[in-house]
Amino acid sequence: MQNRLKAEQYIEGVLSQDRIILSKAITLVESRLESDRKLAEKVLEGILSHTGRSLRIGITGVPGVGKSTFIETFGKYLCNEGKKIAILAIDPSSQVSKGSIMGDKTRMETLSNDPNAFIRPSPSGASLGGVANKTRESILLCEAAGFEIILVETVGVGQSETIVKEMVDFFLLLMLAGAGDELQGIKRGIMEMADALVITKSDGENLAKAKSAALEYKNALHLYPLNENNWQIPVLTCSALSNQGIAEIWETMCLFDKKMLQSGYKIKNRQKQNIKWMHDAIKQKIEQQFYANPKINATLASIEQQILVGEILPLVAAKNLLELQHASNS
Amino acid sequence: MQNRLKAEQYIEGVLSQDRIILSKAITLVESRLESDRKLAEKVLEGILSHTGRSLRIGITGVPGVGKSTFIETFGKYLCNEGKKIAILAIDPSSQVSKGSIMGDKTRMETLSNDPNAFIRPSPSGASLGGVANKTRESILLCEAAGFEIILVETVGVGQSETIVKEMVDFFLLLMLAGAGDELQGIKRGIMEMADALVITKSDGENLAKAKSAALEYKNALHLYPLNENNWQIPVLTCSALSNQGIAEIWETMCLFDKKMLQSGYKIKNRQKQNIKWMHDAIKQKIEQQFYANPKINATLASIEQQILVGEILPLVAAKNLLELQHASNS
Repeated sequence: MQNRLKAEQYIEGVLSQDRIILSKAITLVESRLESDRKLAEKVLEGILSHTGRSLRIGITGVPGVGKSTFIETFGKYLCNEGKKIAILAIDPSSQVSKGSIMGDKTRMETLSNDPNAFIRPSPSGASLGGVANKTRESILLCEAAGFEIILVETVGVGQSETIVKEMVDFFLLLMLAGAGDELQGIKRGIMEMADALVITKSDGENLAKAKSAALEYKNALHLYPLNENNWQIPVLTCSALSNQGIAEIWETMCLFDKKMLQSGYKIKNRQKQNIKWMHDAIKQKIEQQFYANPKINATLASIEQQILVGEILPLVAAKNLLELQHASNS
Repeated sequence: MQNRLKAEQYIEGVLSQDRIILSKAITLVESRLESDRKLAEKVLEGILSHTGRSLRIGITGVPGVGKSTFIETFGKYLCNEGKKIAILAIDPSSQVSKGSIMGDKTRMETLSNDPNAFIRPSPSGASLGGVANKTRESILLCEAAGFEIILVETVGVGQSETIVKEMVDFFLLLMLAGAGDELQGIKRGIMEMADALVITKSDGENLAKAKSAALEYKNALHLYPLNENNWQIPVLTCSALSNQGIAEIWETMCLFDKKMLQSGYKIKNRQKQNIKWMHDAIKQKIEQQFYANPKINATLASIEQQILVGEILPLVAAKNLLELQHASNS
C-alpha cells in the first residue's frame, strides 16, 4: 500500500483547492485496494455537500475529428473567460485493443500550463464499469475543488459514448464534414444522444464543405422527435485554427444549462444518473466479491480447463461456481 | 407459467430436426422464469454433444447498408447450395432507444419460406448480457437441429458488434461506398474486428464508386497489423440486386474456415469464447440473485428515494445494500 493521507487531510486539501491533494485524491479513488476504497468513500462523503455545482460536459467524436485540438482551444477560451475547468478522459478502449490512443502526456500543452485548467489522463486497467465509477468520483472531487466546468472526453470507440452520456449534463458530438448520408447512418445512434453537433475544421478550403454539412445535419435532425429534454439539437461549425465558432459553442451550452435548470431537467437527469451509478456500483462490487471468494478462486482454473476441453457447458460451469459460492456463504 | 414439454421431448425433437420443437426450445431458453431456466439447462446439457459442427457467422453494418437484403440474398444462395442455415439476431438497441428497428416480421419473405432456412427474430427485453447468453444458447440448439451455417445479425448500434464477435467464427462487416477517410476513421474499431469487408450495392451507377471504395479499404487494411488469426482481411463487393459477388463471399468464408481449422484457431477461439460465456453467465446470475433477494427488494425503493433527494452518495447506497445482502446471507 502506498503512503496515504488521512481522510480529513484529503477533504481539507480538496476543499481548499489544493491541486496536488486533488491529484492525490483522484489517485485514491482510482485505486483498487480495499483499504483505499474505504478511505475514498470517507473522503467522498466528506466533500459530497460541496459537489454538483458545475456544468458537466461530455465530448466525443471519431478519431481524426480533432478532439484534442478542440478541447485545447475550447478550454483555453474558457480559462480566458475566467472559468476554472477540469478535463477528464474515459478510455475503455484500452481494454479491447490495449490501444495507446491516450497516454500522450504531451497533449494540450498550452492548456495544461494554464492555472485555471486541471487535466487528468484517464484511469486505466479497470473494467468498463470500474472506469465509469472512478470518473464519476473524480468529477465530484473536481467540483469540490472549485472547478465550474468539467469536460469529460471519450477516448476509444463504441461503448464509451454511452458511459460518458450517463455522467454529464451536456453531450457534445464533434463531426467531420465530407460524408453524406452514409455518415449520418453510422452516427445515428450517437446523434440521438448529442445535445449539440459541431463540425470541426471549418476553415480554409474546408469551409464551404463544413457549412453544407452543417445544413445537411440540421435538416436531418429536424426529422427526429425531440428528446425528453425538449431541446432542439443545434448544429454548429468551428475552427480551432482560426478560433471561429468557439464562443458560439459556449453560448449554446450556457443557454442549454439555463433552460435545463429552469425546466427542472438538469436536476431530474442527474438524479436518474445517480440511480444508475448506484446500480453500476452494485454490479461492480458483487462481481469483485464473487471472484475474491477463496473457494471460487481455488476452483476457477480447473473449471475453465473443463470448458477448454469441452467437458462442460459454460452455463453449467457458471451454475457450479455459484453453488460453490452459496455453500461458502452459509 | 406456460405449458412446457419435458426435457427429453425437447432434446429428441431438436435432434430429430423438428422445427416446431426447435422454436419452442428457443422460447424456453429465452424465458426468464426460474423453472424454465432449470429446464433449459437440462435441454442444453442433453444436446451439448451434438453442437459445434457449424460455421457461425456474424453480420454487421450501419443502418442503410442493406443488411436484411444481403442476408436474404446470401441465405437464398446457401439454401440453393443445399446448406441448412439458421438466422438469429441480436438487438440490444431495444434497451437504449426502445427502437423498433427489428420486429418487422415481413422481413426476408422469400428466405423464410425456404425449407432449408430457419429464421428467428431477436429476443427482447433482457439486459445486454442476457440477450447475448440467450443467443449463444439458441446457436447450440440450431446446431443440434442440424443447421450447418448460423448467421447472427447485429441490429442496433455500438455495443452489439462486440457481443456478436464474441460468439461467431467469422465476422462480416457490410459497408457502403462513398465516404473516404472519415468513414474509415469511424469504423476503425469495427474494421479491426472484421474477417471480411463487403461493399454492398455495387451495381448500376454505384459500381465504380464501390470498386474504388474497395480498393481504398484494401489499402487501408494493409497498414494494419494482422490479427491473432493471421488472416489478411479481404475486401469484396457485392450486389444483392444483380446477385454479383455472393458466391465469392461464400468462398472466402469457406477458405477462412478451412485455414482456421488447420491452424487450430477455430477451436482455440471457441474455447476462449466459452470461457467468456461462463463469466458473462456468472455476472448475469449474481446480479439476478442480488435483486431477487427479498430484503434488497424491500429496501431498494427507499434507498433510491434517498439518492433522488441527494441525501446519500450512490456508492454509499450501494455499500448499504450490499451489507444488507450479506446480513441476510449469514
